[in-house]
Amino acid sequence: MRQRNKPWADDFLKDNPHIIIPNPVENKAKWQSVFGNNNPIHIEIGTGKGQFLVGMAKQFPEINFIGVELAKSIIVTAGQKVIDSKLDNILLLNEDAEKLQEIFAENEIASIYLNFSDPWPKNRHEKRRLTYHTFLEQYKKIMTASGEIIFKTDNRGLFEYSLVSFSKFGMMLEEVNLDLHDHQDPLNVMTEYEEKFSEKGQLIYRCRARFL
Amino acid sequence: MRQRNKPWADDFLKDNPHIIIPNPVENKAKWQSVFGNNNPIHIEIGTGKGQFLVGMAKQFPEINFIGVELAKSIIVTAGQKVIDSKLDNILLLNEDAEKLQEIFAENEIASIYLNFSDPWPKNRHEKRRLTYHTFLEQYKKIMTASGEIIFKTDNRGLFEYSLVSFSKFGMMLEEVNLDLHDHQDPLNVMTEYEEKFSEKGQLIYRCRARFL
Repeated sequence: MRQRNKPWADDFLKDNPHIIIPNPVENKAKWQSVFGNNNPIHIEIGTGKGQFLVGMAKQFPEINFIGVELAKSIIVTAGQKVIDSKLDNILLLNEDAEKLQEIFAENEIASIYLNFSDPWPKNRHEKRRLTYHTFLEQYKKIMTASGEIIFKTDNRGLFEYSLVSFSKFGMMLEEVNLDLHDHQDPLNVMTEYEEKFSEKGQLIYRCRARFL
Repeated sequence: MRQRNKPWADDFLKDNPHIIIPNPVENKAKWQSVFGNNNPIHIEIGTGKGQFLVGMAKQFPEINFIGVELAKSIIVTAGQKVIDSKLDNILLLNEDAEKLQEIFAENEIASIYLNFSDPWPKNRHEKRRLTYHTFLEQYKKIMTASGEIIFKTDNRGLFEYSLVSFSKFGMMLEEVNLDLHDHQDPLNVMTEYEEKFSEKGQLIYRCRARFL
């Protein structure tokens, strides 16, 4: 996502440490107590401007949501949305997906959402794709046994790649949807990107996969 | 596929037992000797009018191809194509896919092609889909350890279903292609149906999956 220079981003982070948690590694294995309940925790990696996360948190009040987004200038927009929503089951982390294992303990996460992740189409960038096996290894380490990865994209190449990558990693596909908006899942929460591209007639793919 | 009444079908079968093999169960475990060589055997289930099978046999002379087609009035068209092709690496069986284990021995088949199989979209007909787990069990029993199922369809629902069915059966996806004709695989041989529907702009899906 294109990043604009937002000088107020640093101030926003400083003023809202209860929303965008600083030093999240300190909360490893303690995230439920940060939320103050025993509800399952779902995370979104690359949460962008937060529309999906806020929509999900509204729809599922019994689940704790954590959005991980590396771009400071973007996560503050998500932060403002969280504040406006008045929901208390969302937190944000201004962190790199590479650091998941430092931030979360084994079995701490029930589901992971990957929405419209960067496709990194060049072969030499395969390692950067969030469905590359090194990332899957990380996800597996922090997820519960029945945990699912729920992956949405409009990028055909990345979707094809990811189905094979999940399968080769030994994961089981629970669902494959090759035209999400045609199936009209009433529970689907759209990301900003999804809204824009599905209006243009772009196919949206989704799958759910779990570790065995 | 719609079947027309072809009174010459019975005569054709009687006259061409070297092409459309009668009583194929008698050749169980002996198919390579029927071909007269030790080349691997690939089968197509639901071979229709035979365009795919003949095209493949032409492209891969080192492979023996067997087409299985239940509809007598259709397999004779394939039979005529085989005769016209003058290829000696094709045989046809006028049989039901349910009988594969009676016809082929363990490890006798290297690859199975499923092309544009009947989608049987109603839930209550799931058992008839050629990627339902009872069929996968049969395929596994007759295939070599490294054997692949290569599945093509334009039916989104059947493709989604089949990816999940393969995965739940413990198979590994080696390839997923969500727009085969865009990728322009120069080795792809089109079926009659595929030619017609891709001209209309229909997406053609393909995957390759293997047993573990």
